[in-house]
Amino acid sequence: MRRAWVLATGTELALGQSVDTNSPWLAARLAALGVRTERHVVVADDLAALRDVLREATRGCDIVVLTGGLGPTEDDLTRQALADVAEVPLELHPPSLEHLRAFFAARGRRMPERNVVQAMVPRGAQVLPNTCGTAPGLRVRLGRADCFALPGVPFEMYAMFEREVAPALRSAAGGAVLLFRRLHTYGLGESDVGQRLVDLMQPGRNPTVGTTAQHGVIVVRLYASAGSESEAQQLLDETEAEIRQRLGTIIFGTEDETLAAAVGKLLLGTGATLSTAESCTGGLIGKLLTDVPGSSAYYVGGAVSYANEVKTALLGVPNELLERYGAVSEPVARAMAEGAAARLGTSHAVAVTGIAGPTGGTPQKPVGLVYIGLHSPGRTEGYEYRFGSDYPRDVIRLRAAHTALNLLRLKLLETQGSAPARRMPDTCR
Amino acid sequence: MRRAWVLATGTELALGQSVDTNSPWLAARLAALGVRTERHVVVADDLAALRDVLREATRGCDIVVLTGGLGPTEDDLTRQALADVAEVPLELHPPSLEHLRAFFAARGRRMPERNVVQAMVPRGAQVLPNTCGTAPGLRVRLGRADCFALPGVPFEMYAMFEREVAPALRSAAGGAVLLFRRLHTYGLGESDVGQRLVDLMQPGRNPTVGTTAQHGVIVVRLYASAGSESEAQQLLDETEAEIRQRLGTIIFGTEDETLAAAVGKLLLGTGATLSTAESCTGGLIGKLLTDVPGSSAYYVGGAVSYANEVKTALLGVPNELLERYGAVSEPVARAMAEGAAARLGTSHAVAVTGIAGPTGGTPQKPVGLVYIGLHSPGRTEGYEYRFGSDYPRDVIRLRAAHTALNLLRLKLLETQGSAPARRMPDTCR
Repeated sequence: MRRAWVLATGTELALGQSVDTNSPWLAARLAALGVRTERHVVVADDLAALRDVLREATRGCDIVVLTGGLGPTEDDLTRQALADVAEVPLELHPPSLEHLRAFFAARGRRMPERNVVQAMVPRGAQVLPNTCGTAPGLRVRLGRADCFALPGVPFEMYAMFEREVAPALRSAAGGAVLLFRRLHTYGLGESDVGQRLVDLMQPGRNPTVGTTAQHGVIVVRLYASAGSESEAQQLLDETEAEIRQRLGTIIFGTEDETLAAAVGKLLLGTGATLSTAESCTGGLIGKLLTDVPGSSAYYVGGAVSYANEVKTALLGVPNELLERYGAVSEPVARAMAEGAAARLGTSHAVAVTGIAGPTGGTPQKPVGLVYIGLHSPGRTEGYEYRFGSDYPRDVIRLRAAHTALNLLRLKLLETQGSAPARRMPDTCR
Repeated sequence: MRRAWVLATGTELALGQSVDTNSPWLAARLAALGVRTERHVVVADDLAALRDVLREATRGCDIVVLTGGLGPTEDDLTRQALADVAEVPLELHPPSLEHLRAFFAARGRRMPERNVVQAMVPRGAQVLPNTCGTAPGLRVRLGRADCFALPGVPFEMYAMFEREVAPALRSAAGGAVLLFRRLHTYGLGESDVGQRLVDLMQPGRNPTVGTTAQHGVIVVRLYASAGSESEAQQLLDETEAEIRQRLGTIIFGTEDETLAAAVGKLLLGTGATLSTAESCTGGLIGKLLTDVPGSSAYYVGGAVSYANEVKTALLGVPNELLERYGAVSEPVARAMAEGAAARLGTSHAVAVTGIAGPTGGTPQKPVGLVYIGLHSPGRTEGYEYRFGSDYPRDVIRLRAAHTALNLLRLKLLETQGSAPARRMPDTCR
């Protein structure tokens, strides 16, 4: 199996001001292409240090993937470091310059003179086009190592890796792979999920099984190594089937699937439609739903009713209800959901009202108290959650949004006949 | 200034299944203690590789901080690697064994025999007690480098660093520090910002100045090293003043301040209020605004008008306008902003309608085309942006949300008399 180093450049990374998420992404993608990453190195924007690391890397492995340092400013040094280690000069690459000018022109701007440096490439390097940014990537042979330099901006890097690097590595892989799979669950805590999978999580098992928790979503990770992709896939399939039998409907998706996407899948093609009414989440549920391409087929929109007057004006929540129970109450959550469904003519609606903190809590209604209203045809239900007054604001908001989406998901499963009608407990780690 | 390397061990880190957040945490803490981290290395659980990295590190720097590899299992190799590089044997450390037995006893468990290995230390090493876990840390002199080995579990590592490492480094620092500052800008591309700061970004300058770009926000980073904190702060103040003079109102905040927080600051205490009308951003602007604690003082909410019917039902956008110009048009963006302000009784409103993709674009109205409506007292303006049809959906949405918030910010600055009324171009790298 070929061995790789991943190098990320950036003083802000070395000094700890930003977390390097590019390197783990690259290592995971490399594994799927039959390349084992043995080392990641983060190095400050310093030409001598960058050259040192490149020299070490090209002595230690077969493939080097660099990210960052291809921008237009003084602290972007990857081009120069590659040229220095290869002992060649930098030369203007006219097609890259043309791409740069076109990129700016398409945005109605003149290219600053400074950006010309992004079209300078080490003599003999292969230029990797950037389809969603300015900086082209580079492929350079250094000693025995095949060296790919990619941008540091994540979405530019991802696109260039898939278009330019993955095909080159795949053709050279010879079949061996490490494959990952992720199953996402909502409704049980991490230790409960772990308890149900304890035998599958023994070290040394292939596939290896592990769990991680984030905002109530417990991710079950499977990791299989095999001599061929089909063999690895079969190992993953078998273990996934076993896990699905044990965990049932708490599994809502695989890989990058979100709760909002799972809800969308259940709504799509049924004629059901959805609206939202958000108080403490302030638009977050709408944001999560519309993160999903094609969500306009079932999601029409809704109200961000942060102030009481908006609950009345846009959703028709009776003033009397607000005065009698307060804005953070189950009756108001239900009225918000009913108001959204009625005013916007949708079959389903979710509503959230709560206290996200850090202030605004009282002994009766502490920070973390959230009411969720769920309207489905012929029925409106209310739910109370207490997410913990010691949680930060963003955690409470995301937990509330996830819980609302999960309640809707279970309701849709239930009416589609594939799940028992049971209230899922909120999760905690 | 002393120089450090941070080493993190773990096959799951090297293979990209987990993101290494320990190293950036350590680098940031080291900086505050007057130590500049020049490199992070993540290495798989492999004894030979770990020894290699340790040897390189101890040649390259004054301080090495390791995290991970102190557990009780086969793949915990830090103790052995330190002993090998120091050319000393591992020896049982009786007080550590006692701590281990007591740790398990306190939890009503018998210590597994396997854990004895955690009490083995390289001869001559200083043992760093673990107050919240089993594995003791180690301090070993390797060549000229002072080497600290800490656990990989984050909360154990944090506690041991603060108790054992920070005091040792602080007393050796003699007051020297490395301090950071960040200035956030919106409205110019990275190369334009770099052009205006080119002399300040020369390598070797103190403070060092660098830039990074994310979703149109260009962050200017300052790092000052000095013999005392007050001296470093003064250096930062001087350079910040110089940068502010050159960049003016494109600077919207410092440190963790967001565009939404900057808008909030300008609205707060003026009596002005804000509502939103979001189509393609689907609630994202509301989410960003309500990320800010206390935003209910000026933000009342708004409509997520993803479907045309919602634009009409909640915002009163005339059907005729939708039919004549289409939902993605400047007149509709303006009508949405006016509708939100009128229906919700706010002084200001922002509206966004556009095509976030990946589908839905046409030659006339491509993916990335976004109209922003901005209502302020007595005036409603419309703006057209083309964020690039090659951008992914989430990038277009975030860019649209940021641009809308920035337009509002500039409008508020203008009416408060502190900025010229000029249209900022959209940014790209």
